[in-house]
Amino acid sequence: MNELRYNIVTGDWVIIAPERSRRPTEFVASADAVLPQKHLASCPFCPGNEAETLPEEYSVSGSEGWMVRVIPNRFPALARTGERSRHMGPLHRHVSAVGVHDVVVEHRRHDLTVATMSADDVARVLWVYRERFRQIRQDLRIEAIVVFRNHGEAAGSSLHHPHSQILATPIVPAQFRERIETAIRHYDTFGECVFCAMVRNEVEEGSRMVETSEHFVAFIPYAAVTPFHTWIVPVRHASSFDAITDAEINDLGAVLRSVIARLELGLGNPAYNYIIRTIPIRTLNTEYFHWYLTIVPRLTRTAGFELGSGMFINATLPEENAEFLRTVELSQ
Amino acid sequence: MNELRYNIVTGDWVIIAPERSRRPTEFVASADAVLPQKHLASCPFCPGNEAETLPEEYSVSGSEGWMVRVIPNRFPALARTGERSRHMGPLHRHVSAVGVHDVVVEHRRHDLTVATMSADDVARVLWVYRERFRQIRQDLRIEAIVVFRNHGEAAGSSLHHPHSQILATPIVPAQFRERIETAIRHYDTFGECVFCAMVRNEVEEGSRMVETSEHFVAFIPYAAVTPFHTWIVPVRHASSFDAITDAEINDLGAVLRSVIARLELGLGNPAYNYIIRTIPIRTLNTEYFHWYLTIVPRLTRTAGFELGSGMFINATLPEENAEFLRTVELSQ
Repeated sequence: MNELRYNIVTGDWVIIAPERSRRPTEFVASADAVLPQKHLASCPFCPGNEAETLPEEYSVSGSEGWMVRVIPNRFPALARTGERSRHMGPLHRHVSAVGVHDVVVEHRRHDLTVATMSADDVARVLWVYRERFRQIRQDLRIEAIVVFRNHGEAAGSSLHHPHSQILATPIVPAQFRERIETAIRHYDTFGECVFCAMVRNEVEEGSRMVETSEHFVAFIPYAAVTPFHTWIVPVRHASSFDAITDAEINDLGAVLRSVIARLELGLGNPAYNYIIRTIPIRTLNTEYFHWYLTIVPRLTRTAGFELGSGMFINATLPEENAEFLRTVELSQ
Repeated sequence: MNELRYNIVTGDWVIIAPERSRRPTEFVASADAVLPQKHLASCPFCPGNEAETLPEEYSVSGSEGWMVRVIPNRFPALARTGERSRHMGPLHRHVSAVGVHDVVVEHRRHDLTVATMSADDVARVLWVYRERFRQIRQDLRIEAIVVFRNHGEAAGSSLHHPHSQILATPIVPAQFRERIETAIRHYDTFGECVFCAMVRNEVEEGSRMVETSEHFVAFIPYAAVTPFHTWIVPVRHASSFDAITDAEINDLGAVLRSVIARLELGLGNPAYNYIIRTIPIRTLNTEYFHWYLTIVPRLTRTAGFELGSGMFINATLPEENAEFLRTVELSQ
């Protein structure tokens, strides 16, 4: 029997419809036959082509040169300069599109993915996210920061070279506000952080767990919005991503790499987005909100029902998908 | 200069980013070279294959047989029978997935689209939506009805035969509640329906208008979430779709057909979803909420930023797209 499941953290309703019967193995695709090159002369993110990008904002270097590079997006959605001005009429409301739109080039090599980089490589990227997060926080025009990665065409990426993005907005997105309200309501009712409660419950139940580490818990949410939707949540309560410690960064580098390797190896390198969900940057640490990283594989399409209701239909069973991911054999 | 625009009806923030410079003509594709057949022996929706579908719920017939047919979806997201039961624990909350999941086969002919049907054909489909809406309303397990159409693969449709769907849910989706709250806030502040105010303003300004008729106004919203996103709003205030009169149905049949013809002819038959947005069915007519039809062309993909913020990036200018659609030459 299908059921409608409610995500107590996001407020999302999901129709879990395994009677439409899509088993985990139906999503397995063969990975691309043609492997990308280690270095591509025409790739603007490959070493040697640095002059083709805008001047870098930030970088981390090693003996061979840069290891991770942060550059402004060449077609930024939000401009780095200019004043934040608001026009709030009764009918037309607009804010000047100022903010930050960074590209994080994650590695010198063109052919790597999160799964084929080393855990140290992934940790270095997370370290750069935290560094940029702290720098951007100084810009008083900014209200919220979204760190995300698009992998594969279906997830909105056209360039193979491993990269992620940071967008910092001059407003608090409505979705942030709604989730914070949901979290506050839980805190007011039950006297504890809803994320902490969920992590404890997932570890206890075990059926949706993907893996655990010293500092993180990776699981498929009870009301997963897509097949293989996975959350990686820090065990230590903290509202903002930039509260992450060095030890937690190293640990998350290993867990993130391993979870994505399960997707890549188990399903044949599917398209996915990952996003760091964190509190708006002008809010201090709170008892009720908890940052986390969400991975959304893009194996299905949203259609009219999803657009028209904000609900989701997931034709798979989260518990079955979690078991599938747990049993993927990781090569190393 | 880009700008962040706010939709006063939906609460959506959209980064209007024409500096990423996608002109209307960049979206023009050549329509499929191979035209579908008028009748396809293997199509379950074609006349003669009625036995391949589940028994029909409802139909409208003419001298040649059925003209529009409503059948249960073979893989329904929500089951027709069973009790609505709720389990509302502190951590796991679920509702039995009961409700309605109809397929509306819009025409006997396999090859038609909304643009190539007659206005009467389209009106007949709308008439059937209203009829089913009134029937489903009698089912006290149902809280909300979503009528939608998926056209083209990128919009989630795999079958060419013209069809749409009706999903009726045993809960009120959170997105409905959020939009109602936004509408109430406007009503409480300004003392009028926010949709009525928007329609009046769009007609006055004119720059985003696509077309008008006796009873409807079609325009691209100020904060359009995708290129060529179009709303068709009734001029007469009413909260629920099933309040539509026969005269309004005939008029909407002509307007809907014509707006979609502008998309099909102007852009080369793009994928799109249309959705009827209406008030939850247990609410009476209100002063603050106004039903409408939204058309969302699927010319771009959402990526990590949209998932992670609930915001949208639209790399086109709504005013420019409206002008493009206004000037499409309709053959008739």
